[in-house]
Amino acid sequence: MFSPSVEKLIKLFSKFPTVGPRTAARFVFYLLHIPEQEIENLIKALRNLKKNTKICPLCFNVFEPSRNEKLCNICSDPKRDKSQVAIVEKEVDLEAIEKIKKYQGIYFVLGGVITGFGNEEKISQVEKRIEKLITRIEKPDSEIQEIILALNPTVEGEATSLWLERKLKLFSKIKITRLARGLPQGGELEYADEETLANALRGRR
Amino acid sequence: MFSPSVEKLIKLFSKFPTVGPRTAARFVFYLLHIPEQEIENLIKALRNLKKNTKICPLCFNVFEPSRNEKLCNICSDPKRDKSQVAIVEKEVDLEAIEKIKKYQGIYFVLGGVITGFGNEEKISQVEKRIEKLITRIEKPDSEIQEIILALNPTVEGEATSLWLERKLKLFSKIKITRLARGLPQGGELEYADEETLANALRGRR
Repeated sequence: MFSPSVEKLIKLFSKFPTVGPRTAARFVFYLLHIPEQEIENLIKALRNLKKNTKICPLCFNVFEPSRNEKLCNICSDPKRDKSQVAIVEKEVDLEAIEKIKKYQGIYFVLGGVITGFGNEEKISQVEKRIEKLITRIEKPDSEIQEIILALNPTVEGEATSLWLERKLKLFSKIKITRLARGLPQGGELEYADEETLANALRGRR
Repeated sequence: MFSPSVEKLIKLFSKFPTVGPRTAARFVFYLLHIPEQEIENLIKALRNLKKNTKICPLCFNVFEPSRNEKLCNICSDPKRDKSQVAIVEKEVDLEAIEKIKKYQGIYFVLGGVITGFGNEEKISQVEKRIEKLITRIEKPDSEIQEIILALNPTVEGEATSLWLERKLKLFSKIKITRLARGLPQGGELEYADEETLANALRGRR
């Protein structure tokens, strides 16, 4: 057992994603050895995180209003194509798509997937968010024409995509698409898993 | 680019050991989604970390004085054998040895290794610490009879052990030992690397 203050912080860091007790201990000893001022910087950044950011009520992405704007910079951008909505699981996925600078539509951050044990809270949040999207689609003046299911190509992502498809295909005027599956650029056929190879073959053009 | 408050915190978390920008981003979004109170708990624990802990002037381990004690609970424990000093690189290594409850001596936390590029600051800290140990050994009433070099079995650890050995063998009355090398418990001969196997053969008994 380390000293109580060290143990306390190890416990809190162990809750971080991908962090186990060993890594958490490394974090704490790293902090013990940096100047006090750097810890103060960290504390300040933690304080500012929630204070300075807001969740966009349309796409649920996190943004930082500079003059009390209500919508994020993507949803409020007149140059973005409001007819295309890409549904992503997390904010980092949105950021990954933004980085390639090839997508001009808007987004919808689901905030999770609808499977997984002991995940009821997250699932109910996802369901609530999707209800809001449906309300938007149902409005007579809705511009939405295409929903791009941009979830992860994992079992959970697939299940969530299927669930979304069932919900959204009730709106016949909306096209539902998915990101293409195939070989990753720079990948080698020899090392591709069977599923990826089958997807590549099926989607050939 | 994420929003400035998010980017700022990603930058700070990226300095943590083993953390890259992707993991740092996951940390930040984890924090964005937990209740405000949990962030306050984290801030409080960060504040308490340096405030409540002290570095033991004898062994350089971190400890938490309850009534303004000067020495850590190991150095001040009358039941610990003051004739044996195990030199470890880091606090977590000390903790690993303490956990097995087989060592009754005391410790000395080196705080680093003496190799590595761009590591001059750390090396000079290590050198200063070892000078303090030598001063202790040189005192006429010193109880120290054995130094156990308990550094990691890595290239850096080995180099540091050799360096320590050269410095400490000037004190002829002191026995210098090292942790044994060999096959790890539960390991398989078939999968042991050559160096480990060679060590196991050399150290056979």
